[in-house]
Amino acid sequence: MSQTFPSLELSRPLPLDSGQELAGVRIAYETYGELAADRDNAVLVCHALTGDQFVAKAHPLTGKPGWWERMVGPGKPIDTNRHYVICANVIGSCMGSTGPASMAPDGAPYAMRFPVITIRDMVRALVALLDELGIERLHAVVGGSMGGMQALSLAANWPDRAERVLVVASTARHSAQNIAFHEVGRQAIMADPAWGEGDYYDRDGAPDNGLAVARMAAHITYLSEEGLTRKFGRRLQDRDAKSFGFDADFQVESYLRYQGSGFTRRFDANSYLYITRAMDYFDLAEEHGGRLADAFEGTRARFCLVSFDTDWLYPTSESRHIVHALNAAGAKVSFVELSAPHGHDSFLLEHEQLDRVVAGFVE
Amino acid sequence: MSQTFPSLELSRPLPLDSGQELAGVRIAYETYGELAADRDNAVLVCHALTGDQFVAKAHPLTGKPGWWERMVGPGKPIDTNRHYVICANVIGSCMGSTGPASMAPDGAPYAMRFPVITIRDMVRALVALLDELGIERLHAVVGGSMGGMQALSLAANWPDRAERVLVVASTARHSAQNIAFHEVGRQAIMADPAWGEGDYYDRDGAPDNGLAVARMAAHITYLSEEGLTRKFGRRLQDRDAKSFGFDADFQVESYLRYQGSGFTRRFDANSYLYITRAMDYFDLAEEHGGRLADAFEGTRARFCLVSFDTDWLYPTSESRHIVHALNAAGAKVSFVELSAPHGHDSFLLEHEQLDRVVAGFVE
Repeated sequence: MSQTFPSLELSRPLPLDSGQELAGVRIAYETYGELAADRDNAVLVCHALTGDQFVAKAHPLTGKPGWWERMVGPGKPIDTNRHYVICANVIGSCMGSTGPASMAPDGAPYAMRFPVITIRDMVRALVALLDELGIERLHAVVGGSMGGMQALSLAANWPDRAERVLVVASTARHSAQNIAFHEVGRQAIMADPAWGEGDYYDRDGAPDNGLAVARMAAHITYLSEEGLTRKFGRRLQDRDAKSFGFDADFQVESYLRYQGSGFTRRFDANSYLYITRAMDYFDLAEEHGGRLADAFEGTRARFCLVSFDTDWLYPTSESRHIVHALNAAGAKVSFVELSAPHGHDSFLLEHEQLDRVVAGFVE
Repeated sequence: MSQTFPSLELSRPLPLDSGQELAGVRIAYETYGELAADRDNAVLVCHALTGDQFVAKAHPLTGKPGWWERMVGPGKPIDTNRHYVICANVIGSCMGSTGPASMAPDGAPYAMRFPVITIRDMVRALVALLDELGIERLHAVVGGSMGGMQALSLAANWPDRAERVLVVASTARHSAQNIAFHEVGRQAIMADPAWGEGDYYDRDGAPDNGLAVARMAAHITYLSEEGLTRKFGRRLQDRDAKSFGFDADFQVESYLRYQGSGFTRRFDANSYLYITRAMDYFDLAEEHGGRLADAFEGTRARFCLVSFDTDWLYPTSESRHIVHALNAAGAKVSFVELSAPHGHDSFLLEHEQLDRVVAGFVE
């Protein structure tokens, strides 16, 4: 992960919700399409926990297609022939934006000296990026999962910066179960002796074992029980009979191991700690006096909420909760629950209805 | 875990589903109540993954009450004034029955040389114990979760050994999602350098970190989202504000850490590997030619199935699947889905309706 990616340094220190300030913040970002002369066609796409700025471009480390290529591009639902799409790596992450792996002013990596950040801090950095780019008002802000939290946070805290707010498979607060799964992941990383209080950057081994376990646990929550059964059932992996051993006998085991180990090649364990913490801290109502509707008071943006019926990580009830708050705030909001077998991950997968909803809303 | 517990050595080697044989098998067990002169009042209670023979007696390592004291005892739903209750530690476990921590014939612990076992192997050992005790026919076999799998396996493979079969919050096969969660736990244990291919018994440190993470991940699956929200929500642990650090800010984090670390004091990591493997291998239909009804063909036992509406580990649909198979086999079966907020763990918790169902069925 020593590669550098196109980025920009914010000209001013970034104030954080913790009360600290982060100086010399670098934001790595990619753009797609052309900014119109009147600068009114910008769409900010916000990425999920382990996502990045390569929304519609091959990932430079894995060579895999961008994570939302089917959604963003020329003639795609978010059409780069008409829109100027900006996608930036969130602070705390590891694809070029300032995070725990970055050098602190003293010349050593921040590691666990990096301040604990919030979703609002991530968005504050994104807004600062928009300022640097001279983009006063977004045509739309769009995000799925943690990206949806950022879209909500932007709408709530910088209400004049986006005309349209599209939130897919997300929530306005992390539930006890959400926190619990993240805590398992963090404990898996911190239990790995290679983690060594986070000071592994100058050493040979990163806590890849712990990070892989964290990813495996999280990955289960991204899929539905039904989707797992359809995809794998109890089918065996490259064998006719159980081995009576501890190899990956079942396809689902093999798949999870592959997901876990592949992930460690592109992601930093400390970033995983910081970003999951930010998500767990997220409670948009709490930030606004305890009533979610107050977060959106006076907003003039149009909102669109999308959930999936098999998403048990951020179930439809969470989207509905947001819709009720937006209604109470008198906001313009549309809401659709889509049927899809793949659980939370559905927002990243082929789904024609989702495409139509996004295309229709973003225009 | 060097304590010894009352146990009996099987007089014959135990054949295993893997084709191997286990010699000198020791079964640790506890009994409650008195065996009737005609030996017809025995009730075999089968324990869950991390359970043991101390169903109605304080746990000798933790001092905590037996895991089903509210269900088993004088005047309780399984009434030891009338019934002779037998509860044995399954093979592969670590409370006195032969398992990976036991000495192999060469005088060193089996560790990972212990054969991979199945649920049917566990039951075969239990049936051998009944033989040794001179109990030809059980008044009832009873089990929740993995205990229910054993009860089903006994009914299917030794159909004359039990008059009544009570299966609570269980399944006839492990789903892809069930396997996936167990695989995360196993990978967490195996990723712990202290595991060292399972040869940690003669060393100072056991893979407690990995085992704790495994337990934490599993523990989430035992509880419902609703139960977690009711019990913890987003409440903070002994503080008024978030710490902006990685301590257990939230009560649910603190609770999980406590569950994880407490577990390592009473359980062996290798046993966790072997028992989860046995559960993942469990597919009662597959054992009987692929049709679950065939597993119960000609049975004369009476069955009772109980599920909980918030159990997402072994949801009601799994119990219903078993009931349909029993119907197809012409068996006598009753079935009830109970309402309870606590998910899978409900079978261990206070539940008056469950008490009535158990009392009525076991008589």
